[in-house]
Amino acid sequence: MASKPRLYIPQGLREDMELFLTDARAHYLCNVLRLSAGSLFWAFDGQNGEFECEIVECGKKRVSARILRRTRQFEKGPDIWLLFAPVKKDRTDFIVEKATELGVSKIIPVITRRTISEKIKKERYIAQAVEAAEQCRRQEIPEIEDARPLETVLKNWDTRRILYFMDESGKGRPVSEVFGAAAGKDGPAALLIGPEGGFSEQEFDFLRRQDYAESVSLGKRILRAETAVAAALSCWQAFCGDWK
Amino acid sequence: MASKPRLYIPQGLREDMELFLTDARAHYLCNVLRLSAGSLFWAFDGQNGEFECEIVECGKKRVSARILRRTRQFEKGPDIWLLFAPVKKDRTDFIVEKATELGVSKIIPVITRRTISEKIKKERYIAQAVEAAEQCRRQEIPEIEDARPLETVLKNWDTRRILYFMDESGKGRPVSEVFGAAAGKDGPAALLIGPEGGFSEQEFDFLRRQDYAESVSLGKRILRAETAVAAALSCWQAFCGDWK
Repeated sequence: MASKPRLYIPQGLREDMELFLTDARAHYLCNVLRLSAGSLFWAFDGQNGEFECEIVECGKKRVSARILRRTRQFEKGPDIWLLFAPVKKDRTDFIVEKATELGVSKIIPVITRRTISEKIKKERYIAQAVEAAEQCRRQEIPEIEDARPLETVLKNWDTRRILYFMDESGKGRPVSEVFGAAAGKDGPAALLIGPEGGFSEQEFDFLRRQDYAESVSLGKRILRAETAVAAALSCWQAFCGDWK
Repeated sequence: MASKPRLYIPQGLREDMELFLTDARAHYLCNVLRLSAGSLFWAFDGQNGEFECEIVECGKKRVSARILRRTRQFEKGPDIWLLFAPVKKDRTDFIVEKATELGVSKIIPVITRRTISEKIKKERYIAQAVEAAEQCRRQEIPEIEDARPLETVLKNWDTRRILYFMDESGKGRPVSEVFGAAAGKDGPAALLIGPEGGFSEQEFDFLRRQDYAESVSLGKRILRAETAVAAALSCWQAFCGDWK
């Protein structure tokens, strides 16, 4: 577990740099955590790695700090996207949090025929992803796109990116078979998880006709959308990603 | 997604049997879902499979129903236990829910050196597990044991049951290697997930000395306890369990 707070500070960080924090981050360090001059924290910017920083002064309106040293080099995670149909608010929060911890590189909320929640709060998702990345010691924040209809996303799909869609209909191939066959072959991939009501027949038909798409089964129990996200990403990381 | 409500009714069910429901289940069917005579629902009892039932009468104090036919034979899931160190309330709820969906057969809350939450509400866990089993179309409810210190649980460990402990120290072996080697060899297994602060050095030392225990790494990002539970169980199901 992180012993020091860890903050995402999206500006080119380097050793010996001075940092001025003014917003919620300043409040968090000095008022919530009650740190003061001399306290240490970690910062990462999504491109230069992770740095140990020292608070110089907790001012009323801003915090000044100094970057002491680089503690980790920047390391990019694997190129794995998540397309998911938003569900209820707290379960969608959960999806974004878990996907970030499990190392997804891009998140695209997709509207499918049976998607119930269409109130997509992109800013809220970004905040969730930042918090999860800070907590899990990830080096970058996953990119989060605007919600779009699934058919729009697939119309412009780069067919070199294989799309694994989770299929509860009984027609999907076992995850170990599909990801097992893909293990070792590097290349961009994406996981698609449908809404609570599943994909419609037309959606399944369309997906099954695409050369870039492969259906995957996660067993016979009907998983909630957020469980399917965590399960699919974990299996992908184990077979094809950076858990090897 | 289930089109009909699905209830766990732990009494020997069989075709043509009459059912009388008096408690929260009666309230749920008639008042929450507003079903009435002639409405259909599913029932399962954890030993005889799943049955289609028809409501005969929604009375003031009880509901009578009739079992029409068996819709699924009973099928036992794999023999996989989860030992986890409880965390904050809603995240523990989540662990029980996800573990149930992901097909765990027994859940043992364990108190480790750094376990923070020791208020273990077994009744609450059982309710969560029942709800999750009803929702995911599982055939049985995982058994939930009383919370005990990890060392007590391991003192009487049946050494034929392999114990995979999640190891964030950097010393764990990749999950694909460990579970990949175990795939095909049937036999009882258990997953152990530590608290947010990780295992203590003594706990690690003890675990590493046991012949029945194997350390497993879930990558370099520091997963929250509930994420590690979902990830470890998903990978185990994919490699060794009933997702094949």
